[in-house]
Amino acid sequence: MSIEIVRTVADLRVRLGDWKCSARTIGLVPTMGSLHDGHLSLVRRSLAATGRTCLTLFVNPGQFGAGEDLAAYPRDEAADVALAEAEGAHLVFAPTADDMYPEGFATQVAVPGLGDMLEGEHRPGFFIGVATVVAKLLVQALPECAFFGDKDYQQLLVIRRLVIDLDIPVAIEGCPIVREPDGLALASRNAYLTADERRRAPALYQAISGVAKDITGGADVARACAGATKALLEAGFSAVDYVTVRDAETLKPVSDASRPARVLAAAQLGKARLIDNVAV
Amino acid sequence: MSIEIVRTVADLRVRLGDWKCSARTIGLVPTMGSLHDGHLSLVRRSLAATGRTCLTLFVNPGQFGAGEDLAAYPRDEAADVALAEAEGAHLVFAPTADDMYPEGFATQVAVPGLGDMLEGEHRPGFFIGVATVVAKLLVQALPECAFFGDKDYQQLLVIRRLVIDLDIPVAIEGCPIVREPDGLALASRNAYLTADERRRAPALYQAISGVAKDITGGADVARACAGATKALLEAGFSAVDYVTVRDAETLKPVSDASRPARVLAAAQLGKARLIDNVAV
Repeated sequence: MSIEIVRTVADLRVRLGDWKCSARTIGLVPTMGSLHDGHLSLVRRSLAATGRTCLTLFVNPGQFGAGEDLAAYPRDEAADVALAEAEGAHLVFAPTADDMYPEGFATQVAVPGLGDMLEGEHRPGFFIGVATVVAKLLVQALPECAFFGDKDYQQLLVIRRLVIDLDIPVAIEGCPIVREPDGLALASRNAYLTADERRRAPALYQAISGVAKDITGGADVARACAGATKALLEAGFSAVDYVTVRDAETLKPVSDASRPARVLAAAQLGKARLIDNVAV
Repeated sequence: MSIEIVRTVADLRVRLGDWKCSARTIGLVPTMGSLHDGHLSLVRRSLAATGRTCLTLFVNPGQFGAGEDLAAYPRDEAADVALAEAEGAHLVFAPTADDMYPEGFATQVAVPGLGDMLEGEHRPGFFIGVATVVAKLLVQALPECAFFGDKDYQQLLVIRRLVIDLDIPVAIEGCPIVREPDGLALASRNAYLTADERRRAPALYQAISGVAKDITGGADVARACAGATKALLEAGFSAVDYVTVRDAETLKPVSDASRPARVLAAAQLGKARLIDNVAV
């Protein structure tokens, strides 16, 4: 039997309602499609933790800025559905933009503070788009648990915050980053890399891993980050938006590794803006 | 048996969960307390339409501006609970501000457009406060239906919009304004009026009713509103924030009564800022 695809919120609720009536717990895996093993690791985690897994496919226009890559963002629904099915997911929710944002749509969910720094600073409006669509998806499905990758670490914190603040009765589970053998974090936008850029890309993970190691050893945070930035530019990245060490919960700048911290970075390589992070 | 009061979201969910398990439909009546017959009419409507009615009492700090009357806002929980019980409500939810806005709270729900004009223009941030707390209350309780008065007409439209936009599975029912015999709309802030101001206050309803009648008869909208403003100032109102005729759904200005419209007004009388509206 092939996996079921639903395309409207009404149909989604009917399907999930059946599962809820038969006391199945539901896991939600929101994605923008272009699935890779990072996404599939979320599906596997959901399958292990819940009774029924719904994967969502929606390239959310609300989180792309004016000059960004909404039109170019890789889309291949048939391939995504095949991967979800092969992994054992039970349902794919692939709404249209018209169903998610019907005429007259106006509401915005914002998380000031957490959502304004780092990615929010470099991509104005990005986290309003993310917070709004995730709030919608969670309220639409009301699963027991939703799964997000640590890869988008700031996004994960923003989502945790809005779920607590709006009392959305869904557990949020962050899942480990999946990496290529050379360390590059899996990302749909890696598809933008040329072969040459792909060979250079692992420098990002090497740089932030180096920062984590150095400051654990007592090195100065600012100096370590500056060194990492220099290394990225030397490796062929054209711009470094940030390499920074932040408190792992609040994302406020830290000057040492006395509390749980995270090294986060974003840098441009060819047409791809890559982000990555590691725990300290 | 006296009515039950719960004070935490967790307790609320336990109580409502019991009702949901026994297939009772739930009606929610969100209020800021200081109950009058306008609120009680919402309770009666909820009792008629649903199986169990929960009234919420929460003076929401998030919807008061810096110079506004948060500290002075009338509060009398014991009286409110007695009124809710006498009316036949089944549960009172009276959370603390700490429970609604715990440390680290950051999320804001905004409805640009509808929430920026009229009251939103005269009370910056007001509708962000309203939209955020109402989103929270609805997601906390997930009732079948929630009841709001037409008195806060713009608020009702903002709430309808956010409920649609965020896919909150709750029906929103607007209920008719309850008025004193002389036409004054019931409002908790009427308590701020002196005896002399109370005698002058019905001028607001008379003014907007006059506008509705005049433009139905073909009068010029701008001229009718200007006349109403003049009448309010002559009646002793110290300032008129607006008297305006708007589309009943979008609140966009209209120049005639060819589509369903609403006359809305806000004006200051002594220490009370009064608002009112009538259908055209």
